[in-house]
Amino acid sequence: MNAVIITIGDELLIGQVVNTNQAYISQELNGVGIFVDEQITIGDDFDKIISTLKNATEKFDVIILAGGLGPTHDDITRNALCKFFNCNLKLDEQVLENIKLLLTQKNLELTDVRQNQAMIPSKSISLENKLGTAPGMLFEFQQNKFLISLPGVPYEMKYIFKNSVAPFLKSKFTGNVILHKTLKTSGISESNLSQKIGDVKNILRDFENTSLAFLPNPMGTKLRITVKNSSSEKANQILNQMEIIIRSKVEKYIYSSSEDELENVILDLMTQNNFTLSVAESCTGGLIANRLTNISNSSKYFLQGIVAYSNQSKINLLQIDKSILEEFGAVSQEVAEAMAIQSKNISGSTHSLSVTGIAGPTGATIDKPIGLVWIGYSDKNETIAYQFNFPSERIIFKEVVSQQALEILRRKILKIPF
Amino acid sequence: MNAVIITIGDELLIGQVVNTNQAYISQELNGVGIFVDEQITIGDDFDKIISTLKNATEKFDVIILAGGLGPTHDDITRNALCKFFNCNLKLDEQVLENIKLLLTQKNLELTDVRQNQAMIPSKSISLENKLGTAPGMLFEFQQNKFLISLPGVPYEMKYIFKNSVAPFLKSKFTGNVILHKTLKTSGISESNLSQKIGDVKNILRDFENTSLAFLPNPMGTKLRITVKNSSSEKANQILNQMEIIIRSKVEKYIYSSSEDELENVILDLMTQNNFTLSVAESCTGGLIANRLTNISNSSKYFLQGIVAYSNQSKINLLQIDKSILEEFGAVSQEVAEAMAIQSKNISGSTHSLSVTGIAGPTGATIDKPIGLVWIGYSDKNETIAYQFNFPSERIIFKEVVSQQALEILRRKILKIPF
Repeated sequence: MNAVIITIGDELLIGQVVNTNQAYISQELNGVGIFVDEQITIGDDFDKIISTLKNATEKFDVIILAGGLGPTHDDITRNALCKFFNCNLKLDEQVLENIKLLLTQKNLELTDVRQNQAMIPSKSISLENKLGTAPGMLFEFQQNKFLISLPGVPYEMKYIFKNSVAPFLKSKFTGNVILHKTLKTSGISESNLSQKIGDVKNILRDFENTSLAFLPNPMGTKLRITVKNSSSEKANQILNQMEIIIRSKVEKYIYSSSEDELENVILDLMTQNNFTLSVAESCTGGLIANRLTNISNSSKYFLQGIVAYSNQSKINLLQIDKSILEEFGAVSQEVAEAMAIQSKNISGSTHSLSVTGIAGPTGATIDKPIGLVWIGYSDKNETIAYQFNFPSERIIFKEVVSQQALEILRRKILKIPF
Repeated sequence: MNAVIITIGDELLIGQVVNTNQAYISQELNGVGIFVDEQITIGDDFDKIISTLKNATEKFDVIILAGGLGPTHDDITRNALCKFFNCNLKLDEQVLENIKLLLTQKNLELTDVRQNQAMIPSKSISLENKLGTAPGMLFEFQQNKFLISLPGVPYEMKYIFKNSVAPFLKSKFTGNVILHKTLKTSGISESNLSQKIGDVKNILRDFENTSLAFLPNPMGTKLRITVKNSSSEKANQILNQMEIIIRSKVEKYIYSSSEDELENVILDLMTQNNFTLSVAESCTGGLIANRLTNISNSSKYFLQGIVAYSNQSKINLLQIDKSILEEFGAVSQEVAEAMAIQSKNISGSTHSLSVTGIAGPTGATIDKPIGLVWIGYSDKNETIAYQFNFPSERIIFKEVVSQQALEILRRKILKIPF
């Protein structure tokens, strides 16, 4: 089976927007066993869309289109589809209902422009988009050959893909299974990880059609296992065996083997143990609180965050002794520990994290260079602060520090030595 | 003139890597006056590369290839080019010298595999790559029609593009200049913006070779003006005229016409006026503080943030009257205003923002649905809270609310009615 992804939008051709939709759709198609042969990007150009569709319907069995379905004048994909499939627009009652519901929720009026979004090509069926007014559209352009048109707004596209497109394609096509599993590590460098795992060829030798990739990024290195097999059961078996081998070498660094990020892992650990958390941040500026509260139900354990950015706020909000700040400076072990203790005391939480460091590009001294950071931790038995050096660009610095702080909390709860 | 970018690599087709090379090359080609008609991505597949080259050389004047030039077994672009152009590999002495130099610097040996990187198709000339062993390759496949093959490693590709490709294309094609300008709006929906601007065709009618695109996302809609002209001076003139017309219709919603985001704009406004800011966040969970502190020098005006996630923390940290919380509930105008006032009082800031709402997916009641949010603002003259409804997925909800809060602050400082 041959599949192609066609993304549509001038913003892509001029390079204003990086094409993340392509990567997402490719991954998801892999997930239902469909390998993508080609990705094509074209502009908001009627004739070009038509000629690309002509070509694609001759060569491919599955065509995914993304982009050009909005309400404005430059969104012409829908009309091009009508012309290409030689049909008219029809009103789709379900889509109209959905649009009305969305507008009511947002307290907006049903204008002609918005109502017009409920018109879809008569040869298509609509795919529900609960997050926006443009529905997905599915055409069977030959028997068992499908064209699916999706909006380009990433979260709307993803919603429709997950809820309609993936289940539909899965029901239609079953072939070779490609399975990926990603083990996410934290608190260890790529090269140290590689050393601990040893020669990858030795691991792969025992397993056919498999690969192991190291995917490093500032937040930690991911290990991706890939298995291809005609039997889904067999593929799963091999995947599990490989995972066991890798875990036997680097278990303590692996915080997740799913979509879960550290903030999800922390939610589970905290709520399972009936712990509560407060954080006091300086250089991370609220990022830790923000990450933790990105997860539903974080209110079950996360009590409060304090972003004590100025020295005065460290005194006012956290009641840090002015003398400690003066003697050791804001970026010091003593202040990190005091912040953790005070955060716990003020909130009544069982656990706390604190962060104080120099994000840069300004604020460094000879003793305290850019990238220096102290991360404090406190629970009922222990208060401790760890020093790190992450000299990097400001936003990456914040991310790396937040990751390290959450990793400290994870290991403390699990009693894994740090 | 027609141009195409062909990126090559299995990692792109399985969605493991987001294709940033496409966006970069597109932008750079625009910079030398070449508009990209199409972007194509294919895998490391010999026959597919050949057939794609055949198609591309028939349709395009400029073809940029990226990827598949590395030293490993799956890098086959070079061999495919030999086969397609019906020529052999020849040793390029300059490339060999460069490889030797690189290896000396890195203390590595000249292996056969590395030496082989100095062999290029005899019908091409090499383009220097000081950052890696794979050179760029330039073919004139018909008179004044060029194919350029570049390595896929982004920094190597960029090096060759900047130093060899861009100057070469500029010297060959002194054609049209393409200019873009993006006006970023906030606090208005795409369709309302479209209504206020009116019929785009009426605006474009007076200007040749121009376009206006609406680029919506949850944080606000961007308006992108594009001008194509043979004279760079004339193009700039037209761009400015169009900007004036658009601004005359929607000026108050435009917060930036550069790379700047709202947090950058806020930094400038606050520091220029010697204002200071504190924030008290509930449902945004630290995102506002996090965004503001992503910008260097934010410590010049940003004093503190309080993430009062639990009711108890609203009482402890913000000293909100328990009776207000009980009477009106945490998500209410009264609490939003009290949070803003207390944040200002505790920190001594001149300005403050507060947020309290229901991010979902849990926590909603009949009166207070998911997406309901109150945003409070306080300065020395005024304390006010605005109600909004942003029913959407949790993380997008947080982003949209943070954007709206910063937009309120921007308009208040600039005395633009909200």
